[in-house]
Amino acid sequence: MEQRVVGVLGAGQLGRMFVEAAARLNVQVRLLDVGDTAPAKQINYLPGPDCKSQHIDGSFADPEKIRELASQVDVLTIEIEHVDATQLQKVLDDKLVDAVHPLPSTIALIQDKYLQKVHLAAKGLPLAEYLAVGPEDMSKATDASQARAAQIEAVSEIGKVFGFPLMLKSRTQAYDGKGNYVVKSADQAAEAVAALGDGKRGLYAEKWAPFEREVAVMVVRSATGEVRAYPAVETVHKNSICHTVFAPLRTADPGVEARARQIAEQAVATFGGAGVFGVEMFLMPNGELLINEIAPRPHNSGHYTIEAADTSQYENHVRAILGLPLGSTALKVPSAAMINILGLADLDKDPEAVAKTLVPGVVSLDVPGTTCHLYGKTGCRKGRKMGHITIVGQSDAEVRSRLRVVEEGLDRATQLAEEGGKLPAELTLPGVVAQNASASSSASKTGSVSAKSAQDFSHPQPLVGVIMGSDSDLPVMMAAAEILKKFDVPFELTIVSAHRTPDRMRTYARSAAARGLRAIIAGAGGAAHLPGMVAAQTALPVIGVPVKGSTLDGVDSLHSIVQMPRGIPVATVAINNSTNAALLAVRILAAADPTYLDKMQNYMHQMEEEVNGKIDRLATEAWDYTVKK
Amino acid sequence: MEQRVVGVLGAGQLGRMFVEAAARLNVQVRLLDVGDTAPAKQINYLPGPDCKSQHIDGSFADPEKIRELASQVDVLTIEIEHVDATQLQKVLDDKLVDAVHPLPSTIALIQDKYLQKVHLAAKGLPLAEYLAVGPEDMSKATDASQARAAQIEAVSEIGKVFGFPLMLKSRTQAYDGKGNYVVKSADQAAEAVAALGDGKRGLYAEKWAPFEREVAVMVVRSATGEVRAYPAVETVHKNSICHTVFAPLRTADPGVEARARQIAEQAVATFGGAGVFGVEMFLMPNGELLINEIAPRPHNSGHYTIEAADTSQYENHVRAILGLPLGSTALKVPSAAMINILGLADLDKDPEAVAKTLVPGVVSLDVPGTTCHLYGKTGCRKGRKMGHITIVGQSDAEVRSRLRVVEEGLDRATQLAEEGGKLPAELTLPGVVAQNASASSSASKTGSVSAKSAQDFSHPQPLVGVIMGSDSDLPVMMAAAEILKKFDVPFELTIVSAHRTPDRMRTYARSAAARGLRAIIAGAGGAAHLPGMVAAQTALPVIGVPVKGSTLDGVDSLHSIVQMPRGIPVATVAINNSTNAALLAVRILAAADPTYLDKMQNYMHQMEEEVNGKIDRLATEAWDYTVKK
Repeated sequence: MEQRVVGVLGAGQLGRMFVEAAARLNVQVRLLDVGDTAPAKQINYLPGPDCKSQHIDGSFADPEKIRELASQVDVLTIEIEHVDATQLQKVLDDKLVDAVHPLPSTIALIQDKYLQKVHLAAKGLPLAEYLAVGPEDMSKATDASQARAAQIEAVSEIGKVFGFPLMLKSRTQAYDGKGNYVVKSADQAAEAVAALGDGKRGLYAEKWAPFEREVAVMVVRSATGEVRAYPAVETVHKNSICHTVFAPLRTADPGVEARARQIAEQAVATFGGAGVFGVEMFLMPNGELLINEIAPRPHNSGHYTIEAADTSQYENHVRAILGLPLGSTALKVPSAAMINILGLADLDKDPEAVAKTLVPGVVSLDVPGTTCHLYGKTGCRKGRKMGHITIVGQSDAEVRSRLRVVEEGLDRATQLAEEGGKLPAELTLPGVVAQNASASSSASKTGSVSAKSAQDFSHPQPLVGVIMGSDSDLPVMMAAAEILKKFDVPFELTIVSAHRTPDRMRTYARSAAARGLRAIIAGAGGAAHLPGMVAAQTALPVIGVPVKGSTLDGVDSLHSIVQMPRGIPVATVAINNSTNAALLAVRILAAADPTYLDKMQNYMHQMEEEVNGKIDRLATEAWDYTVKK
Repeated sequence: MEQRVVGVLGAGQLGRMFVEAAARLNVQVRLLDVGDTAPAKQINYLPGPDCKSQHIDGSFADPEKIRELASQVDVLTIEIEHVDATQLQKVLDDKLVDAVHPLPSTIALIQDKYLQKVHLAAKGLPLAEYLAVGPEDMSKATDASQARAAQIEAVSEIGKVFGFPLMLKSRTQAYDGKGNYVVKSADQAAEAVAALGDGKRGLYAEKWAPFEREVAVMVVRSATGEVRAYPAVETVHKNSICHTVFAPLRTADPGVEARARQIAEQAVATFGGAGVFGVEMFLMPNGELLINEIAPRPHNSGHYTIEAADTSQYENHVRAILGLPLGSTALKVPSAAMINILGLADLDKDPEAVAKTLVPGVVSLDVPGTTCHLYGKTGCRKGRKMGHITIVGQSDAEVRSRLRVVEEGLDRATQLAEEGGKLPAELTLPGVVAQNASASSSASKTGSVSAKSAQDFSHPQPLVGVIMGSDSDLPVMMAAAEILKKFDVPFELTIVSAHRTPDRMRTYARSAAARGLRAIIAGAGGAAHLPGMVAAQTALPVIGVPVKGSTLDGVDSLHSIVQMPRGIPVATVAINNSTNAALLAVRILAAADPTYLDKMQNYMHQMEEEVNGKIDRLATEAWDYTVKK
């Protein structure tokens, strides 16, 4: 492939993962950041004629250094948006590079979160209500104390419109919760303004958004404007820093995931230049999605794509900025999660700060489906992003149970860091990890959900739903629950009546796939409409169990369930045989998951052995052994 | 994690992918190979105090250089087995390093393919018959012409035992078919010996093994002797060089995959030291597996693990040699393939040699689920390994159809290279790839099997099997085939009779999962035993279609199919309703594959629209429109 050199402003972890993707395609990268051993520089050997590294040692905000980098490369991009956008426009105007991605104007727009909102609102995209606080153009506000007074006044005024609490935000240089201030009453206006730049930085206010969950979508945009969204994910923040990410997003409302992707694509389509963008959104209790903010680069919430998607966000960024075809953004695994490894202590205060911080990584080595990424950063500060762990699995339940092991390690290390305790040997490398390994090996080797995590009949991430029209069907349907437990299938069991709770049935069936279910077992007697009516409102396989009533021997239910019209199948099993319904559900899971296939093969082998035992008994005891007791 | 420095002999593509995995775990690596920009050195920046790279410039066979590397690292490993094993033992004895992995004695044993065979045979592992040719200990054979004469004589003698053709092999320095000679008759003995070292190198002979297929298994071994096999894969060689790899291995014989893993684990357990080993085997027509040879390092047939397995072979090699817990070797995707990018021409003869060689990579950028790895090698020679492409997908059929696009690109480039033609613009980067993109975009965007690749009723990689007891059931079962075609499901349709072909039924059912099927649709009338008897012999979901006979209206078949005993379920649909059977099969696929889920949702939406159309028609035309025509 043609050699075009890419320059990147910034050489932190995002740059490092970008370099990894670029190297795989033989794309040469030159980096601008302070120091010779920034994370991205470590994995990119670039000797110059004078035997010095050809990377640039300097700040990505320094106009001179940006020009120096630009003069050596064909295409410029960024791993952080807090760069000198004016200088980027200048090197483009001066034709020092063929392209800057995304466009310097896009970077400038996104740098100022208030202007970002104005832009998105003008394009009709959904946002929480917002208002400028004090002077709209801070470059014209020469007097800081005047600006401060205007800002304090504005906060009080806006409070009358939005109510309190409201979110006061710095327009620029804000990330990971820095630059945000929750103003609970008008009394706090002065201290909030003081905390956020004290009249020296522009501010804006947002109406409080009591969101249910946070959602993010990575979108890749080609230079010609093609946009492709990755699946929507759920992001969980702690202390305003991304803590965990879950892909794909599961919701009871089946349309949310597609809507999130659509909004993200629409938003990214409004920006100029190529590359990957991260769109963070709030999911409101009424199902509404509001854009929170946009990052014009690969993003923490997209790390999971390295292991879980057809093409990682980093490779798609490489492709987009070089004009190569965009890669598929589809998930290649059923479920994934990502957890950040954040510094647990400052190295100058705790000599074990690094070792404690790495405990989740050490623990993760024993958990199947996990990949630990360490960024090669020197030193350790509390809250600093030192690495991340990606976890993939065959189901949400499996991913969550794997994550739990890592989180338990994190909890223990956090406690030790807070209490200043000494890290026990089994949580450090090298040798002793092996002990840790054998301790947790039973959970990790089966690779399946542990019994402990599968609550009896309402697993939080169920794969199979067992429903029946009435609790009078429970005696028949209990056998299904027993089988699912035996096979370690995460499931939920509940009552859904076609005739008495038609709305509940509709909601249950329509949300099933979006909640992550893969099969539904429905038991019904008499007219037995439940299985068929559920099948009519979901694309998942529905298994029907005819429950025998007091008349007609269950043949009525059997015919009601099995004789479905062309177009809507119900997988019908024998009358009252919910055991077989559950076994069929396991076989459906086994079709795509070798672990369940193995378990079913073992189960069938055991049945054969049991009958062999009876054959022996019949041969050795007596032909009437079943009636004699 | 504790910093222990790893030294690697060799810095080619295997070393490069090892460095990638090591960097992710913050493991420092120093490399020994000729030149400053060997593939692995490019992605590993290691500046020394004198501002020179701290990697070592020299041959991995040079004893002095090995000592130099050893003095700087804690653990030594290799990316190629043609190293100086004696020197490795010496640096270990001299305690220059804590460990060498695998053990120098293991490397020495494997270097000599004859001794490797003797060792494996002594451990009871299955091999093709073999015999030494001429002097067993070449170090004692001082006179080359004497040795040559003895070798020629031996070939003739062995021919009497093994018959011709037989395989004559060099004991050392053999790879990619170099060092092998097919001797077709005793007359060829002299030329074969002359070709393989002419009395200067040790030889051995193998009985001709007319294998059906070639199989490989990667195994990781911890220093304490724990072994974990990756799934068995099929390898396809062209001109004795690995061309493509398919994971997992599919065979009609359901036990082969597990047996291959078991043999590989047993073989690797016999060797000393930690690390990844590649075990290549022949699958004979009678189902027997014979070990061909073993590589004491990550291997070409394991490249696919980077994108397709929980933990890549490279990361597991890092973990094993450092005493970290071994990672899961399970596949995380349903199906994967790997194709090598081999040099198509010599650069000094064809200035477009590189561009032609990279055509498969260029083409792959447009194919979902593919990852292109280029090794950063300078220059280009015919047959040189320049990169590889991994393809993952939700089914074998999907992976094969994606591979086909890449192979078509390869075929075109190969033809151009052979005929000396000029590479057309649409096959080169950068800009014009976009054209190529739109041309093939219809296939690539759906991400599913194209209609063209799905042969009508005997797809080579079927997901669903449609079977019936007799061709008299065809009129009923045809509707199932129509639905599967409509949904782009790769399927096979055939006759299997429970009563007339019980052996065929047994074979069909037992091999179904190993062949990659995910569901079976079985139609039967009257006594209707086929669905239940198939379900009794597979762990896959079986869907039964009761076929209506001339008496009893099909209720006989319905009851025979649905009233299965506890333990063995059959998913029964309505009488004669094979449409619903196929729709149920699609729903079963949809449970794990979002593409089919989308298709099923669209299908259900279309049905709704059709009925809405009829509602309109009834309202606007007349209430008797169905009878008036």
